Amino acid sequence: MKAYKVLEVKQSVFAANDKEAEELRLKLKEKGVFLLNLMSSPGSGKTTTLQRTIEALKADMRIGIMEADIDSEVDAKTISDMGVKAIQLHTGGMCHLDAQMTSQGLEGLGIEDVDLAVLENVGNLVCPAEFDTGSSKNAMILSVPEGHDKPLKYPLMFSICDVVLINKIDVLPYFDFDIEKCREYVHMRNPKAKVIPICARTGEGMEEWYEWLRQEVKEWKGK
Amino acid sequence: MKAYKVLEVKQSVFAANDKEAEELRLKLKEKGVFLLNLMSSPGSGKTTTLQRTIEALKADMRIGIMEADIDSEVDAKTISDMGVKAIQLHTGGMCHLDAQMTSQGLEGLGIEDVDLAVLENVGNLVCPAEFDTGSSKNAMILSVPEGHDKPLKYPLMFSICDVVLINKIDVLPYFDFDIEKCREYVHMRNPKAKVIPICARTGEGMEEWYEWLRQEVKEWKGK
Repeated sequence: MKAYKVLEVKQSVFAANDKEAEELRLKLKEKGVFLLNLMSSPGSGKTTTLQRTIEALKADMRIGIMEADIDSEVDAKTISDMGVKAIQLHTGGMCHLDAQMTSQGLEGLGIEDVDLAVLENVGNLVCPAEFDTGSSKNAMILSVPEGHDKPLKYPLMFSICDVVLINKIDVLPYFDFDIEKCREYVHMRNPKAKVIPICARTGEGMEEWYEWLRQEVKEWKGK
Repeated sequence: MKAYKVLEVKQSVFAANDKEAEELRLKLKEKGVFLLNLMSSPGSGKTTTLQRTIEALKADMRIGIMEADIDSEVDAKTISDMGVKAIQLHTGGMCHLDAQMTSQGLEGLGIEDVDLAVLENVGNLVCPAEFDTGSSKNAMILSVPEGHDKPLKYPLMFSICDVVLINKIDVLPYFDFDIEKCREYVHMRNPKAKVIPICARTGEGMEEWYEWLRQEVKEWKGK
């Protein structure tokens, strides 16, 4: 027997978070609340995509949005102006949300009357990928101006996402972005990931995304 | 006297890093090596901007580039193909570089024959802003497709940068981006920051950036 203890601090942080995330997921499943964790780089179009999605789905289901940001209340204002429940989460400088922070957010939001809760995570392709938030599914947005090589550079993010939305396809003519190559790189990281090219601004391609969400919420609620 | 100690762990991490950063900066000053810490979101054009900058300045000064990435060696290959010294730093999943990691990078690169060393930081607007790398100056790139509101959402990044390059101005007609508003938001965070609109792809506006760099390197070397 060793005379000293070995403490893997990072491991233990992640293990504790994984446990909390699993508990939260179970609780949400029981309550029939589908939680989508939406991630991307800064400025990829998370809020615009959400706005469109709310417009399309708010007649079919009750939606609640958590806007996580280091500072500012720009996004929560935009969303609540659309007539759905919204809350602004300030992370106090933190670069991601963990399960505990997400729980707090859901409590602040109130989920008794919510079918679909969305967490708009901090704009960041690195840290949010490391922390299970307790979400039912993970989605991310990669926008055309960022380049098709991003799955090579931010592997973890792409490997944990169930859906990758390729946004801003209206500007494809002005950028050197290869959708097929991007799809190939995404599938290198995660063969099961669904890749949907969209333009949140014009609405192009969004129907497939709405349909995926509708289906997932339905399945989650056991209908 | 209190019977227990209070340990501010986060504080102590930052304080230790600040000390190491200051020592590194002093060492670089003595050796006449100017270190630029270049930051941005993923896909804002750090590597393209660097390529252009190398082309423009490599006749005037000896350049060495550190490409930090979570994975992949794409960028170091691109840069070393241009005939300047380059090294790929893998951060092992870390979302930023601290002074100690930067020191290791500089050692790996070798700075005896370098006037301008550039650290291309991990693509991330949050964490890299929190860690002083020991750089002589900090620069960041915000690209037009990301939107002019980013200084509101990522305040720390903008407050620590000496220069903000607004990249991809060639696509201004296709995006709702207000340069004057962006300038105003940047100056809210840091009144002294220099804002330079550029297009790294076409070269537009780059001369002002080269001139700033030339001047800074000259001053650093005490010429």
